[in-house]
Amino acid sequence: MRVTLASANPDKAAEIVEIVTPLGLDVEPRPPGLADVDETDDSLDGNARLKAMAVAVAANAPALADDTGLEVDALDGAPGVRTARYAGEHATYADNVEKLLAALRDVPDARRTARFRTVAMVCWPDGREVLAEGVVAGRIADAARGDRGFGYDPVFIPDEGDGRTFAEMSDAEKHALSHRGRALRALAGKLG
Amino acid sequence: MRVTLASANPDKAAEIVEIVTPLGLDVEPRPPGLADVDETDDSLDGNARLKAMAVAVAANAPALADDTGLEVDALDGAPGVRTARYAGEHATYADNVEKLLAALRDVPDARRTARFRTVAMVCWPDGREVLAEGVVAGRIADAARGDRGFGYDPVFIPDEGDGRTFAEMSDAEKHALSHRGRALRALAGKLG
Repeated sequence: MRVTLASANPDKAAEIVEIVTPLGLDVEPRPPGLADVDETDDSLDGNARLKAMAVAVAANAPALADDTGLEVDALDGAPGVRTARYAGEHATYADNVEKLLAALRDVPDARRTARFRTVAMVCWPDGREVLAEGVVAGRIADAARGDRGFGYDPVFIPDEGDGRTFAEMSDAEKHALSHRGRALRALAGKLG
Repeated sequence: MRVTLASANPDKAAEIVEIVTPLGLDVEPRPPGLADVDETDDSLDGNARLKAMAVAVAANAPALADDTGLEVDALDGAPGVRTARYAGEHATYADNVEKLLAALRDVPDARRTARFRTVAMVCWPDGREVLAEGVVAGRIADAARGDRGFGYDPVFIPDEGDGRTFAEMSDAEKHALSHRGRALRALAGKLG
């Protein structure tokens, strides 16, 4: 099956292509010249739907989007739906990580539990959709470690791993455990 | 490593033994004659800790407990920490499932999203602990399907599966995806 990618984030787009291509999804790049879609919804699936539907209509083809939230227990679930723009609308990955580490500065290791959650969705121009979610539990490291991946990868230590952050893992190791890997494999299975 | 099982639920105990024995954890049964531990905490890790610590002290040995919550989005995260006693203190699995299906009677398929979350923990008599969490996303079926597993398995369809409920899967298929499988494998890795 062929889908048009709705994500405008090149790191995320590269990761999506890497995960879904072996699953038989043929990914077309996002059409050039499309305006960014404002993520105005208060839920991950609402924002994924906004992005996928906008691109599906513009491209007149099924479009694939995801939205990801990092839910930190000690912050009552924040940054959550604001994960990508935690430190402001034009925040860099480093800004977001810095803000998170500062917010957790006095929180001991046992209370740094968190979850990464991704909703992945394909929408068709006629309004149909297929959706799947992937989750991984872990904790927030005391300091950034590793130079792979992107976003909060340097400070997220998955419980199902061996103590390394996502940014210290190879892409294959990360995708096997990650929220996005799980969501996209589940989505591909439902489309299959 | 040898651990004493804190769970008093025979279905859960059997599942824990099945998952962790191949991981090198040698599980001793819960000591006979211990009073049940009241799950009075408002968090999964708090309740797992209460159970594990009580048995660790009684047995003077490291003890393994888990606590599991089913978080249904359309019910604002309920039954959550009350999952095992959703329909009352002495509710059967069937009572709980029936109450859940009734609560979701008018909720369409797209809004029946949910997550199963398990916190698994080993506590030592001296207060040390190691903890891990496993999560799986899915949705609540319209009606119970399948006769394997226990609890809410007949109405939980994991997104990473093929449309079957947990109760329609073999034990191995379920454990590969399930909240409890993920939590216990992660815990065994941390103990390793």
